[in-house]
Amino acid sequence: MSCSLTAAHTHPLDQLSASELLAARSVLINASIISPTDAVVSILEVDEPEKSVVKAWKPGQELPSRKALAVTRKDGIMRKTIVNLDKEMVESSEVHEGAGGTALSELEVEVVRVRRILAEYQPLQESLAKRGLSYSETALLPLSPGWFDVSEDEGKRLIFMQFNYANGTENHFMRPISGLFAVIDMDEERVSKYVDDYDEDIPLPRREGTDYRLECQEPPLLKPLNIISTEQPNGPSFTVDRHIVQWGSYWRFHLRMDGRAGTVISMAEVFDDGVWRSVLYKGYLSEMFVPYQDPSDLWYFRTYMDEGEYGLGANASPLEPLNDCPRNAHFLDVVLPSASGLPVVKSNRICIFERSAGDVTWRHTETLAPDGKIITEARSKVTLVVRMVTTLGNYDYLLDWEFQTDGLIRVGVGLTGIIQPKATKRRSLNDEGELSDSLHGAFVSENLVGVIHDHFMTYHLDLDIDGPKNSFVESKLKRRYIPPGAGIRRKSYWDTESRVAQTEADARIQLSLTQPSEFFVINPEKTTRLGNPVGYRLVPSATAATLLDPDDPPQIRADFIKKQIWATQYHKEEKYAGGEFVYQSHGDDTLSVWSNKNRNIANEDIVLWYTIGFHHVPVQEDFPIMSTISGSFELKPANFFENNPVLKMQPSSAADFSAYFPEIDTKIEQKST
Amino acid sequence: MSCSLTAAHTHPLDQLSASELLAARSVLINASIISPTDAVVSILEVDEPEKSVVKAWKPGQELPSRKALAVTRKDGIMRKTIVNLDKEMVESSEVHEGAGGTALSELEVEVVRVRRILAEYQPLQESLAKRGLSYSETALLPLSPGWFDVSEDEGKRLIFMQFNYANGTENHFMRPISGLFAVIDMDEERVSKYVDDYDEDIPLPRREGTDYRLECQEPPLLKPLNIISTEQPNGPSFTVDRHIVQWGSYWRFHLRMDGRAGTVISMAEVFDDGVWRSVLYKGYLSEMFVPYQDPSDLWYFRTYMDEGEYGLGANASPLEPLNDCPRNAHFLDVVLPSASGLPVVKSNRICIFERSAGDVTWRHTETLAPDGKIITEARSKVTLVVRMVTTLGNYDYLLDWEFQTDGLIRVGVGLTGIIQPKATKRRSLNDEGELSDSLHGAFVSENLVGVIHDHFMTYHLDLDIDGPKNSFVESKLKRRYIPPGAGIRRKSYWDTESRVAQTEADARIQLSLTQPSEFFVINPEKTTRLGNPVGYRLVPSATAATLLDPDDPPQIRADFIKKQIWATQYHKEEKYAGGEFVYQSHGDDTLSVWSNKNRNIANEDIVLWYTIGFHHVPVQEDFPIMSTISGSFELKPANFFENNPVLKMQPSSAADFSAYFPEIDTKIEQKST
Repeated sequence: MSCSLTAAHTHPLDQLSASELLAARSVLINASIISPTDAVVSILEVDEPEKSVVKAWKPGQELPSRKALAVTRKDGIMRKTIVNLDKEMVESSEVHEGAGGTALSELEVEVVRVRRILAEYQPLQESLAKRGLSYSETALLPLSPGWFDVSEDEGKRLIFMQFNYANGTENHFMRPISGLFAVIDMDEERVSKYVDDYDEDIPLPRREGTDYRLECQEPPLLKPLNIISTEQPNGPSFTVDRHIVQWGSYWRFHLRMDGRAGTVISMAEVFDDGVWRSVLYKGYLSEMFVPYQDPSDLWYFRTYMDEGEYGLGANASPLEPLNDCPRNAHFLDVVLPSASGLPVVKSNRICIFERSAGDVTWRHTETLAPDGKIITEARSKVTLVVRMVTTLGNYDYLLDWEFQTDGLIRVGVGLTGIIQPKATKRRSLNDEGELSDSLHGAFVSENLVGVIHDHFMTYHLDLDIDGPKNSFVESKLKRRYIPPGAGIRRKSYWDTESRVAQTEADARIQLSLTQPSEFFVINPEKTTRLGNPVGYRLVPSATAATLLDPDDPPQIRADFIKKQIWATQYHKEEKYAGGEFVYQSHGDDTLSVWSNKNRNIANEDIVLWYTIGFHHVPVQEDFPIMSTISGSFELKPANFFENNPVLKMQPSSAADFSAYFPEIDTKIEQKST
Repeated sequence: MSCSLTAAHTHPLDQLSASELLAARSVLINASIISPTDAVVSILEVDEPEKSVVKAWKPGQELPSRKALAVTRKDGIMRKTIVNLDKEMVESSEVHEGAGGTALSELEVEVVRVRRILAEYQPLQESLAKRGLSYSETALLPLSPGWFDVSEDEGKRLIFMQFNYANGTENHFMRPISGLFAVIDMDEERVSKYVDDYDEDIPLPRREGTDYRLECQEPPLLKPLNIISTEQPNGPSFTVDRHIVQWGSYWRFHLRMDGRAGTVISMAEVFDDGVWRSVLYKGYLSEMFVPYQDPSDLWYFRTYMDEGEYGLGANASPLEPLNDCPRNAHFLDVVLPSASGLPVVKSNRICIFERSAGDVTWRHTETLAPDGKIITEARSKVTLVVRMVTTLGNYDYLLDWEFQTDGLIRVGVGLTGIIQPKATKRRSLNDEGELSDSLHGAFVSENLVGVIHDHFMTYHLDLDIDGPKNSFVESKLKRRYIPPGAGIRRKSYWDTESRVAQTEADARIQLSLTQPSEFFVINPEKTTRLGNPVGYRLVPSATAATLLDPDDPPQIRADFIKKQIWATQYHKEEKYAGGEFVYQSHGDDTLSVWSNKNRNIANEDIVLWYTIGFHHVPVQEDFPIMSTISGSFELKPANFFENNPVLKMQPSSAADFSAYFPEIDTKIEQKST
């Protein structure tokens, strides 16, 4: 088992290897698309061959032509370039016109500039001195500015800077320096706007209690629970062969990490009675939208689109063995391009593990058999989890893909890390001061308000149920009335009314508790032996609807969250729900714009999109670090199999364990009563 | 650690011990409330002392007076009796007037009668002979009849009988005998209605593929995954001292099993900085409603209220070690009354285990520190799960209470077991036949349709946040508009508008995606140091709204599911959302009726009610046994703690494990690229 995603490519969908990254970079430099010194490479990743080519390819055959997609910025010019790696030449290169820019995954390059600019910026030094603060202890937060249809900002590439104070704490987020703010024009390399709205009544929030590091905790610490571990004496049941993960005789899929999208699951196939059947051609988180809900001067713009503005893979965090992933996890390294396009090997950015959470796959106790026999059959549940964590400044997002033996895929997200708070004049609700309803959040510590915000995460789910041509079906659950006098004792019941979405307009779904539907992607040309179309069902769970006005610029940019479900015709360039060039974008290249083309989606290659959502009103428990909030949705076989696919699963028995582990006495002594 | 709930009582809330059950039964027999031979005891359980008495009691003190609550039926008379166990006398005994009867937990007694009646019932024998079927292989399904305002049924105690065929399969549910149906009048001990609507075109659905037992599976079986086990070499971190469960220095609570409600969690307290603080005085599943959605003659009445009609504890299944609960689980026996009131020790009806699912309590990677240092702190997650399984005929329900170290309680349900199908003339959708939309379900096998239905589970949650006097708060998330010309670049944002529910009418909540709220139970007389009221938040997740007409009799009976959340004033007798006497009830003693009293609930002892809901349209994967469908909701601290209560938690380190387990090499070999 090779547990690394850094090896040379052996599959058409493999991410670029280190040598391919170097080769692509050379081509880009030779073509003067980037320079070795000061250009920024926002995306440098595999340009996937057409789906038909990938599907036709078989292991052992020569690989289809390898190409790289480069999104770059040099001298203010942004380009999208296809490099043919076999021929070592530029195949095409377009200058990006119009609104929107490349991601700040270029942070390494651009923040160096910002630090240099600000170090020499006298007003900032004076502001800090006035407050008695030292520049060396000041943390700079480079924030994407969103878009607010302000003519003076148009055509400029801006970074908005917030300043935190890190004196004696690594949790500088909890010590925001109030009233201090700078806008950097990255093209002109200067401070284009500077605000010092100093109010000596607003203190720097206190340091005490902010640090979350173990070494900073005053005793007594919490008493640890007894050792608990998931053990696999014979090792895992999955293999990782370069980019191909295979889990027993249940699932196989291609796994890679893109700088922008993070983990990408491709060609996920489930084993059914001797045959690997196609379920998911490609699945990944395609954009995140995190609007804060404080309209004041230094907060209104915080309407992050974290994936397009920062990058999920580029900001993937190293996973801590035993804490981020259990002891039986296997960790994968990845190679990703730096901001200058150089390959960087990053350790432990993905973990894969079998989860044994004590759940039950299926069970039944039979008590009504005519012979009076009591029968219990039960099967425990083990799933396969692929995890990454991306850290976008303050927040940490756990992104899980979980596969079940019965064909179900659960996509899970966890939100942890640090909230974004602001300093206030008022110490707490106990003090006189402004009304609570102008706080735009809740006190989480003295002089510190956690600001209200949302998280929306829109997944790209290119399901290919037994082939690329699929249909989206909404099955409405409709109340039916029984006419009086029909001789029926019920007045009502419900049944389903299924509708195949003909065009994209038919597949813009706002969920409703009182007018529920079930949602399917089916293969209309294939049925089970009973005539049911084979399909997978999208089972929504954690979600939220936007509360922004439709005409508010942040909502226009992030219009893809106005519905919870969409289905669109597959087009290779429609990758990211928020568009390709998201930084300061105007919302003219988003999922909702594509859907407005209203293309045919019946019996076509289609993509399903689902948005997980959370509204977050902070509470004191979120200080100084927040416990994980979780959400998920499921892709669940629905008449995909002829019957329960794990009927022939075997139960666990004591003998399975006795060779490896000491006996546990689970039989309980019967106390006399 | 005593792992049994059968021991003599040592706490005022303990369930009746075997000797107490015997004593109570003697008193009831002596008072001629039941007879030793043919009475039925539906409920015989502890009658809890007043909350103030329980709370005032301290371990070591003399126990408050022990009383038993008996709900019984003899000669058609139903009674609710309080037995004083100390004085061995009846304290009060009321005859139940009005609609509604006792549960079929009396199945053991009543079904014996039914079998006797039907064995001698010649028309049934003839019907079976006509079909070539044998009575000895016929499974009798005693179904509660619901209520449909039919005068001829009024005042009678009826059981509706369906007949399945168990020839060569233990899964007789998949072989329903079509057209055959009987109604038994249990008072008159006779068949009051018999239907043989024989249609020779409707076959007995085939046996092949129905059995789920391991021994019946044809090879090849599914290849097992490698051994995986949750190991705790030093044992668990919880103790069970009679009925008191304590989990490290995180949680303690009282646990028992009632015949009707199943597991009851009482006096759950969380440890906070040296003090045990009250969270949940009492929590349990208070009723289930499972309406089927086929209005035809033999199906319209299937509108089960499984808890009040059958009993969750009475039908608790023995848990299979290693399959229903993991290897590190500890199993508890319980003692429950039989239908004649005799104590029966039932093994392995509850399991308790620490879950180590590979989740993360909290984490953060810091990348923006001014000194450029990268810091990662992560803490793994272990939770405590209390599980039971109740099997109500075909369905098996997993009922979990899960406790987190950070104060969160997750209430989880799992639905597995067998669906209720019906036989059809039509073999499959491929055949000519009636239209699909009159199937009221979907083909799951040849000549077999899984019928559409719902599951609603209403939890009773008597939260006592730092004391009994609490308030229910709805915090609406409201869109706010910014007037043009205000000099603000946003057009909108949202904030919260909190409202303390003054009366029960203010606390009838229909959830809405587009008009969201957060819901809290707070202690209005206690705030954090920052002035936030201490509270817990109800975090809804899996739910569903009823699709029945409000005037449909099943909906009238189960009107408590018309809202997802309710809060009511605490009254001891308002235990079960569907009322005390549910069998054939008319809906005149339900949560919605109590709520209509519109009592004051601000700064009162209040009870919160939440309904988990599922709509279920069967699919072929549900045949012959269905994989678990899960749902949950959370009770989450919200300004209950002054800050994250697990900030001082310690990370796991390799050294913690090395003494117990072989080393796992999680470091990955770096392939050259």
